[in-house]
Amino acid sequence: MADNTAQQTPTPSRRVVDLLQKRRDELLNIWIKERLDSGDFREELISKKELRHQSRQIIDMLARSIQDANEKDFDASEFDEMRLFLNEISRERAVKGYTPIENATYILSLRNAVIPLLAEELENNSEAVISETLYFTDLLDRMGLVMIENYLRSREEIIHQQRADMMELSTPVIKVWDKILTLPVIGTLDSRRAQVMMEALLQKIVDTGSTIAILDITGVRTMDTLVANHLIKTVTAAR
Amino acid sequence: MADNTAQQTPTPSRRVVDLLQKRRDELLNIWIKERLDSGDFREELISKKELRHQSRQIIDMLARSIQDANEKDFDASEFDEMRLFLNEISRERAVKGYTPIENATYILSLRNAVIPLLAEELENNSEAVISETLYFTDLLDRMGLVMIENYLRSREEIIHQQRADMMELSTPVIKVWDKILTLPVIGTLDSRRAQVMMEALLQKIVDTGSTIAILDITGVRTMDTLVANHLIKTVTAAR
Repeated sequence: MADNTAQQTPTPSRRVVDLLQKRRDELLNIWIKERLDSGDFREELISKKELRHQSRQIIDMLARSIQDANEKDFDASEFDEMRLFLNEISRERAVKGYTPIENATYILSLRNAVIPLLAEELENNSEAVISETLYFTDLLDRMGLVMIENYLRSREEIIHQQRADMMELSTPVIKVWDKILTLPVIGTLDSRRAQVMMEALLQKIVDTGSTIAILDITGVRTMDTLVANHLIKTVTAAR
Repeated sequence: MADNTAQQTPTPSRRVVDLLQKRRDELLNIWIKERLDSGDFREELISKKELRHQSRQIIDMLARSIQDANEKDFDASEFDEMRLFLNEISRERAVKGYTPIENATYILSLRNAVIPLLAEELENNSEAVISETLYFTDLLDRMGLVMIENYLRSREEIIHQQRADMMELSTPVIKVWDKILTLPVIGTLDSRRAQVMMEALLQKIVDTGSTIAILDITGVRTMDTLVANHLIKTVTAAR
């Protein structure tokens, strides 16, 4: 049923789809030329052939998605394929050494190829030019930002992972002798770390049946009342 | 001299400057309304009054900068004030809880207010509409990306700082008894960390005149030949 309906309405809902399909190669040439001239291209990172191939895939997929989405915006499932493809490209390009800002700029620059040709196609209908321009630039913005969002997410994950690693690294409880533990405290002591430290120490005391615990604070850079308070609490808990 | 020349050419070099100046309040209303309707506004983070004030400053500064820049692009020093102001806004908004993507979207959305009014003003000159649209959207892209660039930079700084902290945290050499040192190894051991660890251990051996060094590797999660090799090197160096 759904397929039948789709076949009954082959007219593009958006004039920009028409343009992306009919003048695809021309658009591609203008877009690639603009990229090569812009100085952002960086020949050592991607070959012209690869850039051309990638750009053609984007234009084709974009035409298909806009057509299928039928006026729905970039959040619609019809753009899922596009989003996945952009994720893939942004990962590949990041490995090659492109920054997320460069990736977004690449996508956004398609506009400079599309808008003049749109104006040419719809010469006698300035309202349509404006409507298509606004629709298409909005779509490109969203696409450009997707490439940045992924990168941001991956950086947040690194920060999060490092924080967790640090928490673990910063509470090493060592059994140095029978029934003797030591806990070297290094760096800055905040409430959360103090609590993790205390828990690790208490657990190890129970596990080993230790009677002596040495708190080595020579590695604490600054010692204020807060840090001192945390240490006192830890000592009290250990007793 | 320079001032005289400036006064002799008061005609805006760009039609969009004309629009930003003459229809400023109308633009502001459309832009604000679009923001409020978009669902991105988040009333709890910024008051309508503040948004209006900030948006008006952006429009005024933009008109001035485009005029002064006289066809130069966003890298020109005439946009320094704008860049500084965007940095300031993005910091303020980050503190309030806006994501960098939301900040960029806010800036980019000014386009939706400007382009239709541009088309209205330049009705009989479709070439000028396209030229002004391309110029202005390109400028907004650059402005939007500035807001993201700052955020990215700050996240990179955190990652860098955490890495340095971890390096320090991960090599605690403890004197547990007279002439006895211990070095608990926790987490993953890479070449760089192994080297820092080795240096810290050797330094402490010399400083304390220790004869025994205990390497505690119970905290090493995975042990491959690389890690083992690093440990053997450390032991050899200590002898």
